[in-house]
Amino acid sequence: MSKNNKQFVEKITAMEDDFAQWYTDVVKQAELVDYGAVRGTMIIKPYGFAIWENIRDQLDRRFKETGHSNVSFPLFIPESMLQKEKDHIEGFAPEVAWVTKGGEEELEERICVRPTSEVLFGEYYAKNIHSYRDLPKLFNQWSNVVRWEKTTRPFLRSLEFLWQEGHTAHATQEEAEEETAQMLDIYAEICEDYLAIPVLRGKKTEKEKFAGAEYTLTVESLMHDGKALQSGTSHYFGTGFAEAFDIRYLNKDGEQQPVHQTSWGMSTRIMGALIMVHGDNRGLVIPPRIAPTQAMIVPVAQHKEGVLDKAYDLRDRLQHLVRVDIDSSDKKPGWKFNEYEMKGIPVRIEMGPKDIENEQVVLVRRDTGDKEFVPLSELEERLPALLEEVQQNIYNQALTHLNETTTTAKNMDEFKQALDEKPGFIQAMWCGDHTCEEKIKDETSATSRCIPFEQQHVSDSCVYCGREAKELVYWARAY
Amino acid sequence: MSKNNKQFVEKITAMEDDFAQWYTDVVKQAELVDYGAVRGTMIIKPYGFAIWENIRDQLDRRFKETGHSNVSFPLFIPESMLQKEKDHIEGFAPEVAWVTKGGEEELEERICVRPTSEVLFGEYYAKNIHSYRDLPKLFNQWSNVVRWEKTTRPFLRSLEFLWQEGHTAHATQEEAEEETAQMLDIYAEICEDYLAIPVLRGKKTEKEKFAGAEYTLTVESLMHDGKALQSGTSHYFGTGFAEAFDIRYLNKDGEQQPVHQTSWGMSTRIMGALIMVHGDNRGLVIPPRIAPTQAMIVPVAQHKEGVLDKAYDLRDRLQHLVRVDIDSSDKKPGWKFNEYEMKGIPVRIEMGPKDIENEQVVLVRRDTGDKEFVPLSELEERLPALLEEVQQNIYNQALTHLNETTTTAKNMDEFKQALDEKPGFIQAMWCGDHTCEEKIKDETSATSRCIPFEQQHVSDSCVYCGREAKELVYWARAY
Repeated sequence: MSKNNKQFVEKITAMEDDFAQWYTDVVKQAELVDYGAVRGTMIIKPYGFAIWENIRDQLDRRFKETGHSNVSFPLFIPESMLQKEKDHIEGFAPEVAWVTKGGEEELEERICVRPTSEVLFGEYYAKNIHSYRDLPKLFNQWSNVVRWEKTTRPFLRSLEFLWQEGHTAHATQEEAEEETAQMLDIYAEICEDYLAIPVLRGKKTEKEKFAGAEYTLTVESLMHDGKALQSGTSHYFGTGFAEAFDIRYLNKDGEQQPVHQTSWGMSTRIMGALIMVHGDNRGLVIPPRIAPTQAMIVPVAQHKEGVLDKAYDLRDRLQHLVRVDIDSSDKKPGWKFNEYEMKGIPVRIEMGPKDIENEQVVLVRRDTGDKEFVPLSELEERLPALLEEVQQNIYNQALTHLNETTTTAKNMDEFKQALDEKPGFIQAMWCGDHTCEEKIKDETSATSRCIPFEQQHVSDSCVYCGREAKELVYWARAY
Repeated sequence: MSKNNKQFVEKITAMEDDFAQWYTDVVKQAELVDYGAVRGTMIIKPYGFAIWENIRDQLDRRFKETGHSNVSFPLFIPESMLQKEKDHIEGFAPEVAWVTKGGEEELEERICVRPTSEVLFGEYYAKNIHSYRDLPKLFNQWSNVVRWEKTTRPFLRSLEFLWQEGHTAHATQEEAEEETAQMLDIYAEICEDYLAIPVLRGKKTEKEKFAGAEYTLTVESLMHDGKALQSGTSHYFGTGFAEAFDIRYLNKDGEQQPVHQTSWGMSTRIMGALIMVHGDNRGLVIPPRIAPTQAMIVPVAQHKEGVLDKAYDLRDRLQHLVRVDIDSSDKKPGWKFNEYEMKGIPVRIEMGPKDIENEQVVLVRRDTGDKEFVPLSELEERLPALLEEVQQNIYNQALTHLNETTTTAKNMDEFKQALDEKPGFIQAMWCGDHTCEEKIKDETSATSRCIPFEQQHVSDSCVYCGREAKELVYWARAY
């Protein structure tokens, strides 16, 4: 942990009083982020970045296991290239940052700072794919992208953010659709198994899909305040970009065919979900599997002889088993407790003279605050088990919250009542008409989050217009 | 390896005929890089990026072992902030890319796409450092930076490149200078022990130091054509940025003191060194310790029964020991040999029906082309040993080249003769006057590369002006 001179953790706003302020307070007090000099940009501080690095490493491993290669494409896109795919440019042009001058030179053509890189990959694939032997292309990059947002919040909506963007090209529709589904599964797995965030899996409506995609798959999670957050998306492009960029290959029968493409991304936005799904009024709660520090040793009465030595012995003993750290600074134990609670360290290990005498330590869980005395001889067994219990418990809590706030609405009265009284996801049937979707948004500010893969038939008619229902949709107010 | 339909590796230009063209050919044929759409930008392809990832991981591990934390600072810097440190802005302003428009909005203040991030870290440290307890700050980031270069070449000089930039703040000059030296040692270690690139260690002259630094330490390497390449630099800033940005801390005696700062960076330029130090007329030669694939199995007569099975068995046997891959595509073995020679895979493992019968394989070294027959039973022992021999041999070759082309010059006739006849480093005494340095550059296009830490007294007078010599300098033409 960084040494710092803060002798106490400032109080944070209670989430029940002002959820947005609670979020801002936690982000700051837990030392995740600071503001950059240009409006809407962010500085991800060591603790925030260490969490992101762990998420990144977990994703990257799975990308490689499924045959993907990392690459690095340029930050800059010429304006003319961005305009090749019509839907795509319409979606992104309003939020592009433009470079118009390089050194002393006024540029003849404006250059766009990438908001996403489909067109660059499209151009590359057009040049580099000739035959079925060149397929599939399974590329990913870890990069920064810029979107000129009007209102910004750290992690949730920032002018620049970090993400990975996968871009793949395939010989057949079937293969590309399998890829699209596979990558969504990886996002769902990371959310549920590592970040302890339960997600809904489904397809975006036409209105909410990615600009230029044939369809978009999404995993959606639910925050403490009952608002949803899109946590990872995977897009199937069909042959749209292939037609726009002329990406064709010679198949085994000697025929020219367009490729089928996908793209998929997860970004630092997921850090926002991590904060808002698990955090409480004492700060962050970081799931053990993703926590940079899983257990923090806080020596008690450390000025007494032998305490610090024993605490360091303990650290050395445990560090091959769990990610453990020690705080031997001269801050008072109480301040340390507060600080590591704020940072959401899953387990605190207290050890003082009496514990040493009794050959035990005290384990304190961040999620429940429960304390237990554990004999030193059993610690190697108990600590990893406890971390797993914490992981499971915070997942279960989040799942309970998701389930308890998911309401079925058969008409707009029920819809609005649910939003008012128990904000969360609303299951409601939809006729498939985008005007109904828009009117729901206008009247409630809730948007369609996804058409779930697991369909149910909760009523016969569209929740808005009463016409024949086509499918079940999850709706929510969202970040 | 990526499957591709290239049935042969195109001939590359011989380096003796046209070194620049040889470089371009290798970069392309070995599938390291392609050109981006905006002039001077590059696409780092899977094989190139895999090499960079290995370099990055080695560096990152050492940064963390020495107590540094990764962070992520913004891509964008307001123009007014860039101007706070006078020397710094003078150095960078001519090569900055400017964002002047965001979405539809004309910006009131131009925004600079970072060419380096000293000012952002300076601003952050000013806000976040208050007391000696806040020190040291040991930050690093892996990022992309943009410099609007007029002439560009892949890796060597590109509009955008990838790098890491470390930025640290310390209580004392001594500690900051130790950090500066420590980080240079890490660069030297990576170059010599991993990239098999011998380096000269030293200090830059005033003329060649980083804009705004008090001094710059550098590791310099030598390419096949006798030109030098700056391979990693570490800067000591003294209190210059602290004064410009008002970064002060309260020391233990309650006095306000400016911090002492450093920054240090290694970039994708090092990929250029890797190519030009070890490559030959058959392509790349990648040092085993950094090679994404250390050994490539090429089955011979793979259509014969059992050959492919045995080849896969071999891969499975070896893959926990070395980074091994297999090419079972339907390309002819000869084409495969060429392709992996072009890509510089350290060792090729050939295995055909006769080898299987004799329970042996053929190992072919990339560096020397030597073949050896190795009994299967001895492979686990022999292969790692051979990889180490390759690593040592290519380092020794590079060191021999460096030593054999390092000339001592006592006057400008000797200096120019050496550059003409045996291009490499020139050791020559210097009076310390920057006009001599400039005149040497004007007359020979050689620049001072470093004032080596290990000084020798090779003559009494300055190689250019004949006045009393102050110190030994290494000179060379450089990338």
